[in-house]
Amino acid sequence: MTYCVAIKLDDGLVFASDSRTNAGVDNVSTYSKMNTFSNPGDRQITILSAGNLATTQAVIGQVKRDIKDLKPMNLMTVTTMTEAADYLGDLSANETSKHTSTGNSINFDANFIIGGQIAGQAHKVRLVYPQGNHITTSDDTPFLQIGESKYGKPILDRIITPTTTLETASLCALVSIDSTMSSNLSVGPPIELLIYNKDSLTLNREFRFEEDSEYLKEITKQWNTYLVEAFNKLPPINWSSGWDNAENNNNTEIN
Amino acid sequence: MTYCVAIKLDDGLVFASDSRTNAGVDNVSTYSKMNTFSNPGDRQITILSAGNLATTQAVIGQVKRDIKDLKPMNLMTVTTMTEAADYLGDLSANETSKHTSTGNSINFDANFIIGGQIAGQAHKVRLVYPQGNHITTSDDTPFLQIGESKYGKPILDRIITPTTTLETASLCALVSIDSTMSSNLSVGPPIELLIYNKDSLTLNREFRFEEDSEYLKEITKQWNTYLVEAFNKLPPINWSSGWDNAENNNNTEIN
Repeated sequence: MTYCVAIKLDDGLVFASDSRTNAGVDNVSTYSKMNTFSNPGDRQITILSAGNLATTQAVIGQVKRDIKDLKPMNLMTVTTMTEAADYLGDLSANETSKHTSTGNSINFDANFIIGGQIAGQAHKVRLVYPQGNHITTSDDTPFLQIGESKYGKPILDRIITPTTTLETASLCALVSIDSTMSSNLSVGPPIELLIYNKDSLTLNREFRFEEDSEYLKEITKQWNTYLVEAFNKLPPINWSSGWDNAENNNNTEIN
Repeated sequence: MTYCVAIKLDDGLVFASDSRTNAGVDNVSTYSKMNTFSNPGDRQITILSAGNLATTQAVIGQVKRDIKDLKPMNLMTVTTMTEAADYLGDLSANETSKHTSTGNSINFDANFIIGGQIAGQAHKVRLVYPQGNHITTSDDTPFLQIGESKYGKPILDRIITPTTTLETASLCALVSIDSTMSSNLSVGPPIELLIYNKDSLTLNREFRFEEDSEYLKEITKQWNTYLVEAFNKLPPINWSSGWDNAENNNNTEIN
């Protein structure tokens, strides 16, 4: 499994992903799920990927080849982020259909998040479904997730708004990944984190936290401590406030 | 969707469930997912249900009829909690197969949690899968969840151990449901909560928190406040501790 999140803020974009890939628990490997495409001053695009590793590798490989081969349509020639998402969606849907048409039951689906900025336009993020269609963020939902997304969603829901700073959003993305790793073994370090400052049109800060990163360990430990502290501050259940179910309609009693 | 959790502690059992059922967002209803079966002094059994509502209602209906009709095998005659889970699993698998055999693609699956105590035996909880097989808790995993379980798992992972008190575990179950409700609209109040004290062999505390429960609102508000406070206490990202990816192998740059 995989967990990737992208956050669109007024100040720019934050991308984060884990690097664990598994095809069954006895076949766990480390693959980066973050790819960046730069033409400094003109565009900066990041792609996160989740799902079938053969599909995501084939798609990312094709994206790179199309750039190298100067194909008329490639990530360096698309004129909008929406066109970039359309292009990526087409590659992904085509790659998947190659294999599913053989009639077997394996899931070849891949999900992508593509985000960045092209000169003269706003910075954007889109989530590309296996069928090639895509969605973007909104002020109410300023983040997009792919892969094992549920464990890490509550903290994003509580913290992230469009005015959150890039630094706070990065920390929140790390905590979101930490919550996911705590509850699901198939998501794990290294963690990759990329911050894109609006209008910079270049690769800004990109970091990789290895499994033995002291900072990552410290965040994990402190977050656990603070969460337990927060929980312990909650008022005990006020039993009188609930409806004491003496006349329980759902109780079947004999004797 | 639904979210139900059962926790097995040294001191007894805690059951909690939401009451929202939906068949599409325009067909949201409230149904209790908690049923209790008592023969005070002899046994106290609780069933939580998730999944296809027609299936869960048919199964619970059959469980009640079997007791009423004094069938040789019913929840009041089974001699162990494992036998109870076998019995429930058979009913569930049979009910599901009635409909799936017609060849349509609707999902008729239901999941159940059955827990309680029979005189002379330990208190136990089992999760019954749609196929009728079942699993129990362990010291490392003292809780079982059915339905929309992922959002609410991280807090259970962090708080619950077998020695946790019934009161703390109840509060944790509420917080777990609160996290799920925050991230998934299809899980909602009323929230039902049942506490079973080991060896009491009777229905102890059972509560229902309605949508307008002041306590529930207060918990939701405070938990959000304390979580954000906890998050704000985390040390800012130490960028120097990560590997600054100047030589990014995944970066494709032109020009």
